[in-house]
Amino acid sequence: MRAMGIDCGTQFTGYGVVEQDPDGRLHCVALGVIKPGRQAETAQKLAAIFSGLTAIIETHQPDMVAIEEIFYSVNVKSALKLGQVRGVALLAASNCKREVAEYSPLSIKSAVVGYGRAEKSQVQQMVTHLLALESVPEPPDITDALAIAICHLNTYATLARQQAAPARR
Amino acid sequence: MRAMGIDCGTQFTGYGVVEQDPDGRLHCVALGVIKPGRQAETAQKLAAIFSGLTAIIETHQPDMVAIEEIFYSVNVKSALKLGQVRGVALLAASNCKREVAEYSPLSIKSAVVGYGRAEKSQVQQMVTHLLALESVPEPPDITDALAIAICHLNTYATLARQQAAPARR
Repeated sequence: MRAMGIDCGTQFTGYGVVEQDPDGRLHCVALGVIKPGRQAETAQKLAAIFSGLTAIIETHQPDMVAIEEIFYSVNVKSALKLGQVRGVALLAASNCKREVAEYSPLSIKSAVVGYGRAEKSQVQQMVTHLLALESVPEPPDITDALAIAICHLNTYATLARQQAAPARR
Repeated sequence: MRAMGIDCGTQFTGYGVVEQDPDGRLHCVALGVIKPGRQAETAQKLAAIFSGLTAIIETHQPDMVAIEEIFYSVNVKSALKLGQVRGVALLAASNCKREVAEYSPLSIKSAVVGYGRAEKSQVQQMVTHLLALESVPEPPDITDALAIAICHLNTYATLARQQAAPARR
């Protein structure tokens, strides 16, 4: 099972592709950020994010794509800009015929650290540890994307176990 | 000169393609709304808007695409949703190699009615009159999209006249 997490941002859009072995172990397949040129027009920036994410999906063939649910933002203007990036990220997944799972920040922290109110640094440390990375990836958008992928794999594994377990009488 | 206006919305995305003759007269080439299914997942809705707008651009070949600048929304959650639609609209134009012009609501009303604080109904009446339509198009997202296209054509014609005029000494 291979999941791709996407962390949308107006400056950087982080991505991480994580593979889970049948024995449950996690491996990082790919990680990085897409950073559209600062001078570019909005439409060009969105096109760069769309083609970048499409290329990652086509190259690394994740079974599913996972993305953070967003309910808040600094203000309406930032929310509109962030929404634009989120729109093209969802479209890239849909265009590549991948289903998209959405997880709240609370679910992501719970799945990775075991505690929904965990600090950002705890999430970074745990992602680095779980994937046996040499150091905490920079910028933090990468760790966020990997955390979303891990959250999806954990959720999926739990659901599979529940479905496989005999029903209680 | 042919312009396509897009009015992004989470329920309906209106579009209008308007042609301006060399003598300045305006003709409506195409108008309508893209209405993704209510039951569909967000990614599927965005894919429907993207492919719908792409088809309109490919069929009617506008020289340019124009879209409303958005600075406000009811709240952050609505802004995120609206941003997602706006993102795929900008991407559709960029993917079809069309430049995108953005106009403020004030500029659009000024260009169509001659008064930036005009009522919505005045804009609808004026668009219907300028394009010699039989009745006010419904839903209003269509009139908004046509107004954006007209705004772009007027702005473009004014700029062309300014560039053609001899410089004052």
